[in-house]
Amino acid sequence: MKFARLGEPGAERPAVLAQTQDGVERTYWLDSLTGDIDGAFLAADGVGRTRASLAAGELVEAREGAGLRIGSPIVRPQSIVCIGMNYAAHAIESGAEPPSIPVVFLKPSNTVAGPYDAAPIPPLSSKYDWEVELGIVIGRPASYLADLDEAVGCIAGYVVANDLSEREYQLPGAGGQWTKGKSLPGSTPLGPWLVPADEVDPRSLRLRSWVNGSARQDSTTADLIFDAASLVHHCSQYMLLEPGDVILTGTPEGVALSGRFPYLTQGDVVEVEISGLGRQRQEFYRARAAREALV
Amino acid sequence: MKFARLGEPGAERPAVLAQTQDGVERTYWLDSLTGDIDGAFLAADGVGRTRASLAAGELVEAREGAGLRIGSPIVRPQSIVCIGMNYAAHAIESGAEPPSIPVVFLKPSNTVAGPYDAAPIPPLSSKYDWEVELGIVIGRPASYLADLDEAVGCIAGYVVANDLSEREYQLPGAGGQWTKGKSLPGSTPLGPWLVPADEVDPRSLRLRSWVNGSARQDSTTADLIFDAASLVHHCSQYMLLEPGDVILTGTPEGVALSGRFPYLTQGDVVEVEISGLGRQRQEFYRARAAREALV
Repeated sequence: MKFARLGEPGAERPAVLAQTQDGVERTYWLDSLTGDIDGAFLAADGVGRTRASLAAGELVEAREGAGLRIGSPIVRPQSIVCIGMNYAAHAIESGAEPPSIPVVFLKPSNTVAGPYDAAPIPPLSSKYDWEVELGIVIGRPASYLADLDEAVGCIAGYVVANDLSEREYQLPGAGGQWTKGKSLPGSTPLGPWLVPADEVDPRSLRLRSWVNGSARQDSTTADLIFDAASLVHHCSQYMLLEPGDVILTGTPEGVALSGRFPYLTQGDVVEVEISGLGRQRQEFYRARAAREALV
Repeated sequence: MKFARLGEPGAERPAVLAQTQDGVERTYWLDSLTGDIDGAFLAADGVGRTRASLAAGELVEAREGAGLRIGSPIVRPQSIVCIGMNYAAHAIESGAEPPSIPVVFLKPSNTVAGPYDAAPIPPLSSKYDWEVELGIVIGRPASYLADLDEAVGCIAGYVVANDLSEREYQLPGAGGQWTKGKSLPGSTPLGPWLVPADEVDPRSLRLRSWVNGSARQDSTTADLIFDAASLVHHCSQYMLLEPGDVILTGTPEGVALSGRFPYLTQGDVVEVEISGLGRQRQEFYRARAAREALV
């Protein structure tokens, strides 16, 4: 079962993709269950209610869904929490030691984009970089969790994310804070699908990325230094995680920052994929300065 | 004219405090103009419309307002953007050089609290610290602004903020990212008032803080390394600022991190004040682990 949001930006309709008894995957509207795929829906057992409605044949098939834009599979979160250098090989290619405790930072939630939306390169950027990441979607409030079992219970599902990063803005100066390279408009494509946690083994997912069809990243979440449950538990000691929030778990080696590949330029096409969670594709264009990014 | 939100958490009513012709300051409900003091209200010239309604005598006096809790004067923002080490003396007391470009980081917006709310010290914290700061409230979308004039036009008003910070979580390890010390529940008291930008000269405001009545910080925004308009312009090059967002402009010297004062403990009372913008007062208590912070 895969949750999706279909339609133009700001007007997406909630939907679910599920196999019927004939083995064919079909898309159904979720309007009868919820106005959107958001924290309230997830916290109120939206996953279970969707399964029940599917089993009862209560959902209307979205025959027109195939022609629609695919948006982020969850509505804009309250917080996007990011984990840095969570794959040893990526820490090393970034010139850093693998961390002994999770490295945590935030992105503004207005960076969320659809998985196939055209992606702006900031007007003056020369070091715009891709990062395929496993995204955790929170389903219950998480604060000062006692153990990993509680953390597992707070995970609603998983998404593919591209944590687009401007390295010149991220790294030098600025007191070492990465925020300026991690906040650019459109820099967090999510989706295409939100897959419920009980249908995913987050410990053995293959993550890959390509630029113009050439392989870049190819790793597995088995190589995560801190796994999904550990990250939810850890972050909850420092902040209140809310239903609908997203934790991006970090990216494996194979980004431009390594020096092995060029940074993104206009016309480049980036694809990122995680096994079972879907594949994104963004074509990049150069944003012009002054208000073009305003919606 | 001062905007305020009065009532229990999550049920605040919008209000405005203004002097009448007899020179007495009175409180009026704003329900007839807006459901809340939020980005939409500010972006739709809420300040101007409030002035017009006051002048026309259209607002109902809030006689019961004096007995109510005072909440944050703006509803929960989308983003809280913070500037680090923006007073030279504070950078030095923190063991750092004054920065040559603004240091930018984010706090989760669920950290917002009312200016007089009891304030939790995190369960295991031993280095919880105060930071009086001038807060900028954004009134128009700001992205890739061309100059300081445009930046000034995007500022709706100003608030007092206490940027509560856990230094042990903020500083060592974690790749140098400050997020874990800047994200704790209740760590961003705002208010009591939002004062419109055209009634404030942000270049000459006195900022002070006290712990249990003893002076801690006492500085002026004249000592800001990067002033309000510069910060809005700068941040807009890296992120989309939205109406209702808050930029905390940094704290002056006189915090516990300096080593000159003890960190906060249960029962401590912190007051922070900025001339013309009001004074906050928080009594601190030790939060217990496990779910107490959940609302």
